[in-house]
Amino acid sequence: MSEKNLEDILKRVNQLKITSETSIVSLINSLKNAGFNAKRLAMACEIYDEMINDEECIKFFGLAGALVPAGMQRVVYDFIKEGFIDILVTTGANITHDLAEALGYHHLQGGNMNKDDFDDSQLHKAEINRIYDVYMPNKVYKGIEDFVSKLEISDSQMSVSSFLNFLGKQLPKDSQSILKICEQKKIPIYCPAFTDSGLALQLGFHNQNINLNHFKDMLEMVNLAWDAKKAGVCIVGGGVPKNFIMQSLQFCPNSATYAIQITMDRPEQGGLSGATLEEAISWGKVNEKAKYSTIISDATIALPLILWFLKESQKKKKN
Amino acid sequence: MSEKNLEDILKRVNQLKITSETSIVSLINSLKNAGFNAKRLAMACEIYDEMINDEECIKFFGLAGALVPAGMQRVVYDFIKEGFIDILVTTGANITHDLAEALGYHHLQGGNMNKDDFDDSQLHKAEINRIYDVYMPNKVYKGIEDFVSKLEISDSQMSVSSFLNFLGKQLPKDSQSILKICEQKKIPIYCPAFTDSGLALQLGFHNQNINLNHFKDMLEMVNLAWDAKKAGVCIVGGGVPKNFIMQSLQFCPNSATYAIQITMDRPEQGGLSGATLEEAISWGKVNEKAKYSTIISDATIALPLILWFLKESQKKKKN
Amino acid sequence: MSEKNLEDILKRVNQLKITSETSIVSLINSLKNAGFNAKRLAMACEIYDEMINDEECIKFFGLAGALVPAGMQRVVYDFIKEGFIDILVTTGANITHDLAEALGYHHLQGGNMNKDDFDDSQLHKAEINRIYDVYMPNKVYKGIEDFVSKLEISDSQMSVSSFLNFLGKQLPKDSQSILKICEQKKIPIYCPAFTDSGLALQLGFHNQNINLNHFKDMLEMVNLAWDAKKAGVCIVGGGVPKNFIMQSLQFCPNSATYAIQITMDRPEQGGLSGATLEEAISWGKVNEKAKYSTIISDATIALPLILWFLKESQKKKKN
Amino acid sequence: MSEKNLEDILKRVNQLKITSETSIVSLINSLKNAGFNAKRLAMACEIYDEMINDEECIKFFGLAGALVPAGMQRVVYDFIKEGFIDILVTTGANITHDLAEALGYHHLQGGNMNKDDFDDSQLHKAEINRIYDVYMPNKVYKGIEDFVSKLEISDSQMSVSSFLNFLGKQLPKDSQSILKICEQKKIPIYCPAFTDSGLALQLGFHNQNINLNHFKDMLEMVNLAWDAKKAGVCIVGGGVPKNFIMQSLQFCPNSATYAIQITMDRPEQGGLSGATLEEAISWGKVNEKAKYSTIISDATIALPLILWFLKESQKKKKN
Repeated sequence: MSEKNLEDILKRVNQLKITSETSIVSLINSLKNAGFNAKRLAMACEIYDEMINDEECIKFFGLAGALVPAGMQRVVYDFIKEGFIDILVTTGANITHDLAEALGYHHLQGGNMNKDDFDDSQLHKAEINRIYDVYMPNKVYKGIEDFVSKLEISDSQMSVSSFLNFLGKQLPKDSQSILKICEQKKIPIYCPAFTDSGLALQLGFHNQNINLNHFKDMLEMVNLAWDAKKAGVCIVGGGVPKNFIMQSLQFCPNSATYAIQITMDRPEQGGLSGATLEEAISWGKVNEKAKYSTIISDATIALPLILWFLKESQKKKKN
Repeated sequence: MSEKNLEDILKRVNQLKITSETSIVSLINSLKNAGFNAKRLAMACEIYDEMINDEECIKFFGLAGALVPAGMQRVVYDFIKEGFIDILVTTGANITHDLAEALGYHHLQGGNMNKDDFDDSQLHKAEINRIYDVYMPNKVYKGIEDFVSKLEISDSQMSVSSFLNFLGKQLPKDSQSILKICEQKKIPIYCPAFTDSGLALQLGFHNQNINLNHFKDMLEMVNLAWDAKKAGVCIVGGGVPKNFIMQSLQFCPNSATYAIQITMDRPEQGGLSGATLEEAISWGKVNEKAKYSTIISDATIALPLILWFLKESQKKKKN
Repeated sequence: MSEKNLEDILKRVNQLKITSETSIVSLINSLKNAGFNAKRLAMACEIYDEMINDEECIKFFGLAGALVPAGMQRVVYDFIKEGFIDILVTTGANITHDLAEALGYHHLQGGNMNKDDFDDSQLHKAEINRIYDVYMPNKVYKGIEDFVSKLEISDSQMSVSSFLNFLGKQLPKDSQSILKICEQKKIPIYCPAFTDSGLALQLGFHNQNINLNHFKDMLEMVNLAWDAKKAGVCIVGGGVPKNFIMQSLQFCPNSATYAIQITMDRPEQGGLSGATLEEAISWGKVNEKAKYSTIISDATIALPLILWFLKESQKKKKN
Repeated sequence: MSEKNLEDILKRVNQLKITSETSIVSLINSLKNAGFNAKRLAMACEIYDEMINDEECIKFFGLAGALVPAGMQRVVYDFIKEGFIDILVTTGANITHDLAEALGYHHLQGGNMNKDDFDDSQLHKAEINRIYDVYMPNKVYKGIEDFVSKLEISDSQMSVSSFLNFLGKQLPKDSQSILKICEQKKIPIYCPAFTDSGLALQLGFHNQNINLNHFKDMLEMVNLAWDAKKAGVCIVGGGVPKNFIMQSLQFCPNSATYAIQITMDRPEQGGLSGATLEEAISWGKVNEKAKYSTIISDATIALPLILWFLKESQKKKKN
């Protein structure tokens, strides 16, 4: 790239101004002209918006982390309800916490108290489990056990995603859980590390012969990627959901055309959660011409902002 | 803390809902009932708001990082203009970049290009300096040199803050620079590592006998802290500005009553930038009863959101 | 804790001295008297040593990340060979890379070149996959496919750990792979997210009816924890292996008595990989009286140092 | 770069083996053939060794962070004593802590206790200041005050580096402090943010007219860089020391030929501490043909290993 080219390509950073007219859409549009993670957040919003508008695009969404305990269940629910997710891949933990809320239990926090105001030994004695600054009473597991013990599982060798769809059906119609809305909108949920969860433990304790077919899920995912004319991917937090989507996208004829990830992990130690989207290009998981953006941010900050932007932006288009 | 007490203290995590009615104020209020950095961001907003409403409180603001190049000059400008900052401590770099914009130069970014699309050797040949994904042409320094060479400095031994006030006076009335608004609003700017900047280099080259009095600034800061009935502090990015404020607050009769920090650094390696606000309690820099919140976030995301919240929240109070 | 108590508890930081007599054992012993991650590394070495010397202790080892590609296959192999691991939990990726090396393939690196000297689009064209600064030619997968296509799997519903034991048996006696040494030393390998791997993909493509029983592994792990008089745990990199060990340890009568983790993730965003070991106390996964240490470090630096220390330290005891 | 070229460039990752013959030199040499931060650490060792062997090279060393409290005073001392540093740039904090140890005070740590076993409010009451998991009693400051109050400063406008040299002269001959060894070996210490320190506060309180000339230091540094045929740089922890060295190297005819940095900060938020060495190439601070390596590690782990390697490696050359 010559000096001449650089002058053509580079453009002014605009100094962002917050006014009484500022809206989430105008804010994000302004941040597009800024730098660092502000720009990356704005690019992610723009790319996701384009992904939604592109009717050929199958939208894969990878959800790791403990987002339901942190108050993000309804945010994920809305991503699904609004049609912003076509295929969900998540962890057993997220499903366990989603189910807990669906069964009427709640996660807790310390109000104006800080995390360090609580002692883990005392929490243990009080049978309260800590997830950073969020707390879950142990009794939640008893509720899940109760629920699980009554399930009538028709086929002990169904795929995990079929089982999760079946679970969704057991929940009341108006449940605002991820399991329910996925079942209602026919969005498949994949959970490759399902046995790594409190829900699976209860299931295994009560159904010693259960052998949900994880390979069936794996092959289904490959087929979904294979059939996708265009693929878009949004990765929240990395982990197994990221890799499971990415390994499938290797079989997508054009790899991912759009890619977003939100993570706090870093790339230098070589773990997949922190790996850049550029790295995914070398594997043929993301197309070299893809539009992509990685936001280094806690998802509890970035995800509500992206949802807010998308809802407002899509509303405008409908009007 | 007994189990009984825990039940009294802990409260429900509310599952956040984005609606067509969502505003920045309602969003932040909802995040107060969430977890992780979302809650911390909400707490920081609430604490800053309270700090503004508390007429006895002197508001110290530490600004490290390269926020002007990333498009945040006007955000900082507005914090000052709105009266949200009483004393600013910053780096020579921030002042240099602020001056560059004030003199009509601009920072650049790559539009839809990603950082990795640019090669640093080629940027060097093109005389373009990179700050992550923001770019500054070398010619900016020539402009600064020009400006500096014409300065008529009345006292080569004035304090750094007096010099920065003098600099502000040289800028046009309508300049939307940090230097100008601080001069207009009589907000002192301290810059303990001033000679660690491009501006100071030019100043030294053109004024071989200059010896701005850094000790005078240091003692002034101690006096400001000493005289503060109440102190509030907002630290952006850590570094020397954080330590300079914190070392002064040790002399504040009540230490800081309110404390906020926004950082991406972590505490375990013992550097001050990543140190927790709890640690500052042991030093008597932050009061043990202080309200405080650390947000682990890129400031380019958190700072505009806090400003937006504060402007809306303060507007409501005025009405 | 009163001031008096503090004086009794706190002890001098010794200023570390490197001499011509320095050995790995003396270095680690000195670092015990230092601060930050140096002290944490030293504590981890000491705790692991004690874990080995404690004959009642069952040693669980969780291995995430891409350690085999980064040259750490033989380090993990030696942990197993020396008897430092009783139960291994790992990712499908680690097994795939281990198998690749066992089949005679190699991971590559750039010598004196830096990561940024390689372009991901060109790597993709050259069919070379990047893992940060390590590279794996695509042809490795063809070798794995070849190997997998010839496997004669006796029971398509065996557990994943039985399958991995079977795999180990297919490898030559002198193979220095993790799969082989585990089979030879009868160390079970659990891999809860097995279908999230290149190996499982090949296995699924060639055995459409395979349904390895993940639930059997899960229940076995719970039983192993249940039967452990004492449990010790070393977590490398977090991920599913960490959670799978930790969820099982909830059923261990005394929770973990010793706990070590090596991670670069941070706790504030609430993900399990970065969660502190204190948090695990609230869940009853780690005993409140446990000896524990978290090292914030790339495992490729910390793990060889720990192995070196343990080998020297154990050798001394034998003599 | 064509596929053919890639095959020529890429080389095998060697699986590291720890044996009874392993020495620090053989370990580092093996890690050179590994990946991730292990390789980066090995490259840093190799580059530093070459820097020492290159007689034309002026070795700049930037030291931020709280390394003396963490037990690294003697490590830095030895870097200077062995001739591995020609110019030291550091923070006021490091000098304050170095002086404290030189005056016979000590930093403290909690032995087998963990950081979280101490409460910051109680530490405050006990007049003990916390630096992550290291503790410094407040009385240290009284000792420093005592020392400072007796200083007879000949020239209140000398440069900061002259003052630090003068300080070193006040310390006993056998003091193993950084200040002393720098004075003895005539290694200049620059400290651009000197007034941001406990030592400077005491100095200012007792010498109201002091005005150490920071600009003189700044111009001296530029001259040192200007005169360097070759420059090598080792940055520990970033901060002002990093920028002060880097801004000077812009005036070095060939920029830095060798560059090493050890940091836990990350680049994406645009702060200088986490900025890559590639970025420094765009500024002309590091030569595009330089040998360079960034280690993402706590310096308390990496620095002793590098010193150990260098001492052994240099000893071999002498024999």
